[in-house]
Amino acid sequence: VRGVDIADRTAVPRGVIVTVGDEILLGQTVDTNAAWLGRELALLGVPVVRRYTVADLDEEIRTAVAEAAKISDLVLVSGGLGPTPDDLTRDAVAGLLELRLLVDPALLERLESRFRERGYEELPRNNRSQAMIPEGARVLANPYGTAPGLVLEADDALVVLLPGIPRELRGIFSQGVRPLLEECFGPRMIPVGIRLVHTTGIPESLLAQRIGELLPEDTGPVGLAFLPDLRGVDVRFTATGVEPEEAERWFDRLEEALEPVLGPWRFEAPEGDLVEAVSGALRSRGLTLAVAESCTGGLISKRVTDRPGSSKIFVGGVVAYANEAKQRQLGLDQDVLEREGAVSETVARAMAHGVAERFGADTGIGVTGIAGPDGATEDKPVGTVWYAVTLGGETVTRHERFTGDRAAVRERAAQAALALLLRLLEDRVTITS
Amino acid sequence: VRGVDIADRTAVPRGVIVTVGDEILLGQTVDTNAAWLGRELALLGVPVVRRYTVADLDEEIRTAVAEAAKISDLVLVSGGLGPTPDDLTRDAVAGLLELRLLVDPALLERLESRFRERGYEELPRNNRSQAMIPEGARVLANPYGTAPGLVLEADDALVVLLPGIPRELRGIFSQGVRPLLEECFGPRMIPVGIRLVHTTGIPESLLAQRIGELLPEDTGPVGLAFLPDLRGVDVRFTATGVEPEEAERWFDRLEEALEPVLGPWRFEAPEGDLVEAVSGALRSRGLTLAVAESCTGGLISKRVTDRPGSSKIFVGGVVAYANEAKQRQLGLDQDVLEREGAVSETVARAMAHGVAERFGADTGIGVTGIAGPDGATEDKPVGTVWYAVTLGGETVTRHERFTGDRAAVRERAAQAALALLLRLLEDRVTITS
Repeated sequence: VRGVDIADRTAVPRGVIVTVGDEILLGQTVDTNAAWLGRELALLGVPVVRRYTVADLDEEIRTAVAEAAKISDLVLVSGGLGPTPDDLTRDAVAGLLELRLLVDPALLERLESRFRERGYEELPRNNRSQAMIPEGARVLANPYGTAPGLVLEADDALVVLLPGIPRELRGIFSQGVRPLLEECFGPRMIPVGIRLVHTTGIPESLLAQRIGELLPEDTGPVGLAFLPDLRGVDVRFTATGVEPEEAERWFDRLEEALEPVLGPWRFEAPEGDLVEAVSGALRSRGLTLAVAESCTGGLISKRVTDRPGSSKIFVGGVVAYANEAKQRQLGLDQDVLEREGAVSETVARAMAHGVAERFGADTGIGVTGIAGPDGATEDKPVGTVWYAVTLGGETVTRHERFTGDRAAVRERAAQAALALLLRLLEDRVTITS
Repeated sequence: VRGVDIADRTAVPRGVIVTVGDEILLGQTVDTNAAWLGRELALLGVPVVRRYTVADLDEEIRTAVAEAAKISDLVLVSGGLGPTPDDLTRDAVAGLLELRLLVDPALLERLESRFRERGYEELPRNNRSQAMIPEGARVLANPYGTAPGLVLEADDALVVLLPGIPRELRGIFSQGVRPLLEECFGPRMIPVGIRLVHTTGIPESLLAQRIGELLPEDTGPVGLAFLPDLRGVDVRFTATGVEPEEAERWFDRLEEALEPVLGPWRFEAPEGDLVEAVSGALRSRGLTLAVAESCTGGLISKRVTDRPGSSKIFVGGVVAYANEAKQRQLGLDQDVLEREGAVSETVARAMAHGVAERFGADTGIGVTGIAGPDGATEDKPVGTVWYAVTLGGETVTRHERFTGDRAAVRERAAQAALALLLRLLEDRVTITS
């Protein structure tokens, strides 16, 4: 943002975001749309220079859009395009620009067929408003819903209206707004260069310390940031003010210098999901997976099947929550369960092995632990988790005490089990049991 | 927000929030401060009527604070009070109000002793700026850090500057701002009344249309909004400008009028999650659940076990992704699978029934469908889902064609199956098969 000349329309184009909705002002909804748009626009080379959030009131929407258009090249308005009476953005912006609202026949046809498919005889009256567009507006298709994006012009600025539902907003942005910006501002946009290295299994503080020890004195135009979440830490390299090729050269050089630290923990995943790496490794080796879960309660199966094409590598799984389910569904011994407890190395091992065998899969994962808040014992506090991976008839086990609440323990346990499978597949861990 | 008269200073006081920081505009930080302040202010009775987010630039901060003061009684500015050169809020606001910055001796003494405690011989130069306050400003102590809150007046509005670190902002708000608002606006503050009714299974547009038909002409001080997501639609009633008891009376009256529309679709859940209602209904009846999932791939089990205490009602589940898994783990007939296909009423029924039986549970859910993007056939397009619920030895089946991408189909299918179980438990659906 710094250094952007507000008056110069030949310089880097500037964006302003206007989000519409009482629920945002009242704090019932956190404005993640504005953050997402800010990030995407920075990456494209259209830094956001101001944001407004306004109420579901005609006058407020008009005021914000008018002010925004004065100081920017691009006004992104999110929210208020739905079919209900409190959705006022379309009307307010048309009013501001003195444009009539007209029915768009193609849009109406698409809406009607969408509702017919869902078994309605005719379009609900409220939805008809979503086929109305301000005269002359360009329509950007909505891949996930009924309200399209709308492109207008005000005060020499592009004004783009987007629905507030995050998935729809992101879909329209990626498919429609991105190419529009290339078309309108192309040569003026200077993107920020970014490379992400995904890691899992090493805490942020330790990773940062080791990277600090290895980082070359001269990092050129590149800055480093650590982005931690429950599943791991992304290391983000950012290069500003240089051409993409030079940025890439710097990234390569720094990554090579940091490889001794990153190597054991990193994984390759275009969307940042460890499951991408695991699925790829299974598929390239022609192997299949089955999963037995206790404390993670279906989370691992859910994550694996979140991704399209998972049927090629995933056979199925068992959520063995009750002990009886562990016995009946996975063939665990009642004696073992009673002697060693459900959260034990023997049980994790038997779960991984049992589920692979029963589902006829090449690999198996077993996870058992105490996610909390209840269920802790003196020697097994909340966060205690045993997990195991079976591969080629051999089984490897690990145990950890994860920190955080129930959700955190479950996320960390699922991620750790998937990471162990990946490292076994890639021969980064050897089976020595 | 609706119904607040912007011109009347004897009416409900209105707030505007200004957050300062490049990192917010670039989307590296999600503006949770603004959401938190919005919620707190609504509860106190000072509804937020607009929000600004501006860059770390003197001119931008001045512009936003000046505009905010014009339309409100209270301007809360967060961020830019730290000790580094890009912290400009104090200077910008002093400049706007033409006030000199003076050293506050008490503040300086507190800062110096704080740094002495941490082992510094003298105050770092940068931190000295934090002892400077605009002439005449009231100081609000910071229980967790060095930057105090500062209270000024502009254009008949209170202007309160708060640091951007969430813990410090919240601490100063609770200890200093809250009593200040009572003192300045006391009798004028009327908390916003809010009631949420959660629904699932009816599309937003249809719900809005039917509500529109039933809604009494006079809704008094109450506004309605529809908050849709993949799992359903929340109807939000908001009452402004009336005492809590009157708001509740209005809510009750309107809810009663709308009961014919809401009744079949609503569910009770303090946190808005249908699983809360399902778990409660199972627990109060002393029943247990087992789940067999194909296209939802573990999502239902995951959602049920997300909630603490789920072991009281959840026995376990099977993710039968491959057909072979459906046969081996749930006892499905190969003939049936071949004749009717894996996505069929018979298979959904057999899954629900089979999993309840094999896990020894009182109720069972079975879901099979095509989540996409692959797997569609001519008569079974992406989104086709059969689901079934077994209860008391009887099984009910449903099928739907859900819209959206893979994630949407899975979310909608999981929600629909859970909703069917709830309705059966509550006798809102009768088993007629």
